[in-house]
Amino acid sequence: MTTVLPPVLLTAREAVDPVLREAIGRLDPDTRRVCEYHFGWRGVDGTAEGGGGKALRPAMVLLSAQCARPPGAPDHAVAAAAAVELVHNFSLLHDDVMDGDTSRRHRPTAWTVFGRPAALLAGDALLSLATEVLLGSSSPHAAAAARALSATTRVLIAGQAADLDFEHRDQVSLEECLLMAHDKTAALLACASSIGALTAGAPQDTVVGLRAFGTELGMAFQLVDDLLGLWGDPEVTGKPVLSDLRARKKSVPVVHALNSGTSAGDRLRELYAQPGPLTEQQLREAADMVQRAGSADWTRQECRRRLDAAAEHLPRGPQDVTEALTSLAEFVVRRKL
Amino acid sequence: MTTVLPPVLLTAREAVDPVLREAIGRLDPDTRRVCEYHFGWRGVDGTAEGGGGKALRPAMVLLSAQCARPPGAPDHAVAAAAAVELVHNFSLLHDDVMDGDTSRRHRPTAWTVFGRPAALLAGDALLSLATEVLLGSSSPHAAAAARALSATTRVLIAGQAADLDFEHRDQVSLEECLLMAHDKTAALLACASSIGALTAGAPQDTVVGLRAFGTELGMAFQLVDDLLGLWGDPEVTGKPVLSDLRARKKSVPVVHALNSGTSAGDRLRELYAQPGPLTEQQLREAADMVQRAGSADWTRQECRRRLDAAAEHLPRGPQDVTEALTSLAEFVVRRKL
Repeated sequence: MTTVLPPVLLTAREAVDPVLREAIGRLDPDTRRVCEYHFGWRGVDGTAEGGGGKALRPAMVLLSAQCARPPGAPDHAVAAAAAVELVHNFSLLHDDVMDGDTSRRHRPTAWTVFGRPAALLAGDALLSLATEVLLGSSSPHAAAAARALSATTRVLIAGQAADLDFEHRDQVSLEECLLMAHDKTAALLACASSIGALTAGAPQDTVVGLRAFGTELGMAFQLVDDLLGLWGDPEVTGKPVLSDLRARKKSVPVVHALNSGTSAGDRLRELYAQPGPLTEQQLREAADMVQRAGSADWTRQECRRRLDAAAEHLPRGPQDVTEALTSLAEFVVRRKL
Repeated sequence: MTTVLPPVLLTAREAVDPVLREAIGRLDPDTRRVCEYHFGWRGVDGTAEGGGGKALRPAMVLLSAQCARPPGAPDHAVAAAAAVELVHNFSLLHDDVMDGDTSRRHRPTAWTVFGRPAALLAGDALLSLATEVLLGSSSPHAAAAARALSATTRVLIAGQAADLDFEHRDQVSLEECLLMAHDKTAALLACASSIGALTAGAPQDTVVGLRAFGTELGMAFQLVDDLLGLWGDPEVTGKPVLSDLRARKKSVPVVHALNSGTSAGDRLRELYAQPGPLTEQQLREAADMVQRAGSADWTRQECRRRLDAAAEHLPRGPQDVTEALTSLAEFVVRRKL
C-alpha cells in the first residue's frame, strides 16, 4: 500500500532540509557522515541518496506558527522546525543503540553500520545542533523556544528511561504506560505544535492550546505506532512483523491486555514470562491474546478519542491553516491502518 | 601526595552545586540516580556522599566573569558556570561508555554500575539541562552564551570523533593530535573562560582575550593529563599506571615519539603494532621509549610555553581576579607533576 503524503509534509521537508544540511555541514567529517546516512541523504558508501523522514514534526511547527502568527509578523519558524527535527533524530539515533534495534526506515540503523560510539556521537551532535540552530535564528523569542525545547528533551529522556525500566519489570500499570507514551512521543509533538507560536511571540493561551493539540495528537500517534508494532505490514513499517512482541515491548495494547483481568491477558503474561525467545507460533498466539483481551479495540478507540480531543484544543486561526493541521492529524492516525 | 586546592575552586563548587542539584532534581528518578552517582553525591546504593569534581571549569567561568564585568553590572555567571560543568560531565559520561573506561575519580564509572543505556541517557540529560539552566538565567545575554556553549559542544564532539578515529589508524601526525587535544579539552576551557564575559555583555576584545587565555590553558591542561596518563601516580589519577599505553592511546607525547624519527620512536611503533595486550614489561618499555625519544621533555616544554601564552592573552581586570586566574592556571599545570 502506498500512502499519498499530504502536501504540507513535502513543503515542510523543502523548507527545513537546507537548514538541516547546513547545520550538519558544520560537523567533523566522521560525525557528519553518520548523520547524513541516518537522515537518508547518503548511503553507507557516501553516495547521495534522496531519502529522509516524513517531516511530520517540521510540518507541525510551520503550520502552528502560521496558525499563531500575528498578521504581518515575520516567519521565524523554519529554524524551530529544523531544531525539533534535530532533537527527534537525536533520540532515534540513541534509542536505536540502547534498544539494539537494527532496522529503521527500511535501512540498517546507523550503529550497525558505523558502530555504537559513532552513532552516539552523531546523536550528541544533533542534540547540540538543535540549540545552535534555534539560537542562531533571528526571532527575538528564540531563547524562550530553545528553553522549551530543552525542557521537552528532558521529558523525552524520562520516557526512554521508563521504557528501559519497563523491560525489567513484570508489572506495569496502564497509567504508567500511557505516561511513558506521553513522555516518549507526545511531549515532542506538543513542543512541535507550539514552538512555532513561541518563536512568533503568540499569546500564552494560543501556545497552551497548540501544545494541548500536539499532546493529544502525539498520544494518538503513539497508539497507532503501537498497533503497527503488532500488526503493521513489514513492507510499510520497515520492521519485521510482530517485532514489538518479539522484543517483549510493554507497549500500550500489550499493557492493556496484561492488566485486563481476562484469560487472554493471563496467557499473554505467561508467554512474556517465558525464558528464551518466543517461537513464531507463540508470537502469533501473543498477538491473538492482545486481540482477544479487547486491547486492540480499546487502543483504536482511545486513539480516536485523542484525535477528537486534539481537534477541540486547536486554537482559532486562518481557516486553510487549521484545516491543514486537522488533515495532518487525520493523516497521522489513518496512516497504514 | 595531597594537593591543596586553591580557594577559588572551593568557592566555585559552593556557588554552582545548588544550581546543579536543582537542575538534576528535575530529571526522572532513574536518570537522576545515575547523575547523582556520577557527580559523587551518592553511592551505588543511593546513600549521600560528599564527593564531586574539582570545579575547575566553574571557577574559570566565575573568575573570568569578574574579570570582564563592567563595574556595578549584576553577576549572571553562576548559571553559565553550572551549564559548562553540565556539558563537561555529559562528555565524561558518554566518553566513558565509548572508550569502555571502567574507573573515574577513584570510583567505578557510571555505565559499569547502571549499564550503558542508563549512562547514555544520563549524559543526554546533562547536555539538555545545560541549555535549560543557561537559558533560565536572568542574563539578557544568555542566548548568546548558550549558542557559544552549543557550538563548543560541537567542537568537543569533533575531538572525541578524532580520538576514536586515531584508535584505528597507524599514522597520526603531531598536528592532528594537537588539534584533537584542542577540540577535546581546550575548546571547553576556552568556553569556560569566556562565557562569563558573554553573560556579562563584556566588549568583544575582552571575550576574545579570555577565550585565547582558556585555549592556551586548556592545551597545557591536556598535555599535563597526557603525561599523567603515562607516569601519573594511580593514587592521584584514579587510573591504573601506564593506562594510556595499555589502551594504546595516541596521546600527544606518544604521537610525538612515534613521529620523532628516533629509534625509540620506531620501537614504540613496533610495540603499538603488536597484536594482543602488552605485557607489564612491554608497557614499561613503551613508556621508556616515549622518554628516550625526548617526547616527555618536549611535552613538558610545550606545556610551559602554552601556560606563558595564556598569561599573555589574559585581559586587564581587577588585580585580585587576574591573580586568581593566573594562580588557577599554575595550579592546573603543576598538579601532580
